[in-house]
Amino acid sequence: MATTHWCRIRHDGKPTLGQLRGGRIDLFEGDLFDRPRATGQSIDADTAEWLPPVQPNQFFGLWNNFYERQQAESTQVPDYPLYFVKLPGCVTAHGRAIPRPAGDGQTIKFEAELGIVIGKPCFQPARDAIDDAIFGYTCVNDVTAGHVLFSNGEFQQWSRAKSWPGFGPIGPVIATGLEPDTLRVRAVLDGETRQDYPVSDMIFLPRDIVWRIASEVPLYPGDVIACGTSVGAAAMDSGQTIVIDIHGIGALHNRMT
Amino acid sequence: MATTHWCRIRHDGKPTLGQLRGGRIDLFEGDLFDRPRATGQSIDADTAEWLPPVQPNQFFGLWNNFYERQQAESTQVPDYPLYFVKLPGCVTAHGRAIPRPAGDGQTIKFEAELGIVIGKPCFQPARDAIDDAIFGYTCVNDVTAGHVLFSNGEFQQWSRAKSWPGFGPIGPVIATGLEPDTLRVRAVLDGETRQDYPVSDMIFLPRDIVWRIASEVPLYPGDVIACGTSVGAAAMDSGQTIVIDIHGIGALHNRMT
Repeated sequence: MATTHWCRIRHDGKPTLGQLRGGRIDLFEGDLFDRPRATGQSIDADTAEWLPPVQPNQFFGLWNNFYERQQAESTQVPDYPLYFVKLPGCVTAHGRAIPRPAGDGQTIKFEAELGIVIGKPCFQPARDAIDDAIFGYTCVNDVTAGHVLFSNGEFQQWSRAKSWPGFGPIGPVIATGLEPDTLRVRAVLDGETRQDYPVSDMIFLPRDIVWRIASEVPLYPGDVIACGTSVGAAAMDSGQTIVIDIHGIGALHNRMT
Repeated sequence: MATTHWCRIRHDGKPTLGQLRGGRIDLFEGDLFDRPRATGQSIDADTAEWLPPVQPNQFFGLWNNFYERQQAESTQVPDYPLYFVKLPGCVTAHGRAIPRPAGDGQTIKFEAELGIVIGKPCFQPARDAIDDAIFGYTCVNDVTAGHVLFSNGEFQQWSRAKSWPGFGPIGPVIATGLEPDTLRVRAVLDGETRQDYPVSDMIFLPRDIVWRIASEVPLYPGDVIACGTSVGAAAMDSGQTIVIDIHGIGALHNRMT
């Protein structure tokens, strides 16, 4: 498979599609999911102002999707992908700050995750139609305010704990033509590797996640599914830089403020 | 305040805005949230094919927001609106069937709720700016597959249990210029009243809900917040018709199939 790396940047003040090749970004026009056309222009990637490669309307996140973590935490093996919803307003780009919620002195955690990007409407698909519905894969940092999540003993506040503005860095690119099951996902905090786990350890692999969720609810182009995280997710202090790095996709850098 | 009742119908094959007045719908063109213009046409409301009056991108639902129910169930009084997210694909209209999920012989419940419709972008608003951000109010049936919600003992599946296609009837209209705090919400199942509770019993009243949620995350025009339900929510059998009736807004009819 030929791999391409799609991105979105601000160019001449406007959101603009691009393909990252080497150190340059070739600019495109049109719809990412409907054969965008090359403009013939390109820019130096080092000068780019990155935007999220996609703005999901539905942004799913999974809990408890890795055997290593499930065993470490002695939880049950789920029989269906356990998903919550991150609100679309949390999405942010490579290079943007992750702001601390106002008045909040509590722990904010990073979680390195593989993100699936849907490319076509998908509802009750056949098993063998899943690759056709998936546009590509990206890096996700599923930022979480852990103290909010369980602050009410009766109601788990997943959406609230994971949806502050800046709590959903995605990018820098969406890689197409990539085999997801052999990827590794790393989190590097101020230069120190804190997570490094294989996608192959997932309880539900990426295609299976899409098939199971889309068997119940419709998915749409641009939707993002973050596949959950494994062991090692931890707190970020103000001033620290967190990098979510997936070889074959790219490295998503954000600084906590 | 002058109350208007906005709706959306299919007219000449296209989604079309309307204002319900008496038994007729005056047709409008343009954006519901940006001064739509009357076309001068009108149709008989009895012949209308209703659409959801709005298609939310963010569709919030609240849990445990009524003192009567909180006391009946001996739960804690929450210190923040406890919200989950219904996926946008669940939204359906007045008069449309609520399909039973495929292969599902389990209990499906109705929940009669007041829905707040946001009309302007709203983030970290002042207390006295809330009415300006709220476009109006609608009826919501927060349909729920209760057996899914708690089927995993470790992870509450709120979004999944409440997001099957058809699990989010809203409408038939959005009422503007209405005082929400004095409304009553009723659920009528096959002609029998099953819920009948006052908005004034809410732990967080509608304006307070908007203020608190928007203090953390941005709200956008068309977003819907279902304010939670009180006592009496119950199962619907196939073939039964459920009506969510809020005097001053309207009556939202749907049949379970």
